Amino acid sequence: MRALTFNGEQVRLDRDYRVPVVGNDEALIRPTMVGICSTDIEIAKGYMGFKGVLGHEFVGVVESVGADVPERGKSLVGKRVAGTINCVCGRCDMCLGGLSNHCRNRTVLGIAGRDGCFADRFLLPAVNLLEVPDGVTDEVAVFTEPVAAACNILQQLRIEGKPHITILGDGRLGLLVAQVMAGLNASVRVIGKHDEKLVLCEKWGIKHRLLGDLIPRGDQDIVVDCTSSASGLETAMQLVRPRGKIVLKTTVAAQKDVDLSPIVINEIQLIGSRCGPFPDALSLLASETVDVIPMITSRNSLDDAEAAFARAASGAGIKTLIEI
Amino acid sequence: MRALTFNGEQVRLDRDYRVPVVGNDEALIRPTMVGICSTDIEIAKGYMGFKGVLGHEFVGVVESVGADVPERGKSLVGKRVAGTINCVCGRCDMCLGGLSNHCRNRTVLGIAGRDGCFADRFLLPAVNLLEVPDGVTDEVAVFTEPVAAACNILQQLRIEGKPHITILGDGRLGLLVAQVMAGLNASVRVIGKHDEKLVLCEKWGIKHRLLGDLIPRGDQDIVVDCTSSASGLETAMQLVRPRGKIVLKTTVAAQKDVDLSPIVINEIQLIGSRCGPFPDALSLLASETVDVIPMITSRNSLDDAEAAFARAASGAGIKTLIEI
Repeated sequence: MRALTFNGEQVRLDRDYRVPVVGNDEALIRPTMVGICSTDIEIAKGYMGFKGVLGHEFVGVVESVGADVPERGKSLVGKRVAGTINCVCGRCDMCLGGLSNHCRNRTVLGIAGRDGCFADRFLLPAVNLLEVPDGVTDEVAVFTEPVAAACNILQQLRIEGKPHITILGDGRLGLLVAQVMAGLNASVRVIGKHDEKLVLCEKWGIKHRLLGDLIPRGDQDIVVDCTSSASGLETAMQLVRPRGKIVLKTTVAAQKDVDLSPIVINEIQLIGSRCGPFPDALSLLASETVDVIPMITSRNSLDDAEAAFARAASGAGIKTLIEI
Repeated sequence: MRALTFNGEQVRLDRDYRVPVVGNDEALIRPTMVGICSTDIEIAKGYMGFKGVLGHEFVGVVESVGADVPERGKSLVGKRVAGTINCVCGRCDMCLGGLSNHCRNRTVLGIAGRDGCFADRFLLPAVNLLEVPDGVTDEVAVFTEPVAAACNILQQLRIEGKPHITILGDGRLGLLVAQVMAGLNASVRVIGKHDEKLVLCEKWGIKHRLLGDLIPRGDQDIVVDCTSSASGLETAMQLVRPRGKIVLKTTVAAQKDVDLSPIVINEIQLIGSRCGPFPDALSLLASETVDVIPMITSRNSLDDAEAAFARAASGAGIKTLIEI
């Protein structure tokens, strides 16, 4: 089968990758649409030391399930599904403590210890799958994972009064976070570097500004760093008020000297944020509360995935999708 | 008068420093005992870009107050006092919002825009002063500021269940934080590099371990970084559990490449922490809940302050005091 792989040095379309064999508790999935995320791009720069099939954003059809999959999972065969990316043990302190996303023994689809979804077929534990409602098209459903990551922020923050919130970064994740947070009782704005991306905020009625036009005043109650850049945190520390909160979404392969003394001096809370709730995300997508279609700037076939990945990595466009 | 100054290049005892002139709302204080803090040592390496008289930990006697000081302040003349170090405007958004420690227009004793207390006389706004109870000796009262900084952590954290807490660093601040947190319903331990400092934990009944003997398991609910070292945060990220909290007390002049991706991957909360409540600190010192006498490893006169400062900066001993 075909698979877009990273071998530690280069991203390459392998046309003769072994078809995976479904395990007892797993489902074999035929992805129909997948999305390229900044994490994929960082992985291709060495982040996480991952080698194998790339990709963790997908919508697809279940082809078969393993012998031990219970009835609910078996009923998904032939159905369109989205799926959470953390594959967990169910036995460690994190799993037993209700934090299975942080399972000590986890593999993560296309990120850690498990081949990803940029391929003709891939595997996930059947328990990770959710059926996609009929009204949600493939090109919308493929955004479930990143919208869930945006929703996670709402679970981590307590919103009091009407806070001033800045979303830093006008890329894929920043624009999703902005839409998810726009529903809060808050003053929300997006700061970015790209007029052509910020114009989407105009359409959605979300305040926005170019980074270059901004004078940081240290007055934001909450700043969400979605820059995917090592310099994002520095800017966030300039924007946030003393005792304010910075939500850190950015993970980057390359590090940079960051002076963290503002964290102490201004008693800032820095909150790391990763994966989120899929049901909430599917619901926001089904109700069109989050509008993803205008974010799709490139559609490609898996045969053209190498070039599409390279263009996405160069920063072109917003969301690159690959039809399979 | 005599004053231990930093001119941007070296720490020097100036024997002919101008005696400060008391402002309308200020008090002129004759310090009797002062303490050297890691922040002073970092300032002497360039932290904060401060120049002037060093020092912010003191106990002293009020000699006079300015014309506009109200009755409560006037009554302190001749009394022994401790004093908070942030000198605030009372008019900015932070002051009006109840966060005057973060005043936008503040000066900070011996740290920012205001000469410090390592001198024969110095100034503070009279409103910053608290009388020291008779039962608290000078050598105990001089610890009020760092004990308050330790108490601040208790105000910033919510302790639920019986958390595992690691205090990272067996220096001045780490040993105070350990004593303050030992009173919590928590399993508290100190991790340090110095047998001769950790032995104090033995005396206080606080668990302790050498850093070199430690295998980080990512299982601590809370880690407090009191290392005053740029590498402290890296160790803290290895020790804390997913969704755990790191309280960052360390500010350093020299930065270092830190890979912050564990913050995101493990969804850690990093909480900056600075100054704290003086009344709580004085109360802990008066009740001897916090035991400071065995931490005093060096007593010096102001005439010998240059050499004492150099020895403290080299890492010798725990707490260096200067009698004035």
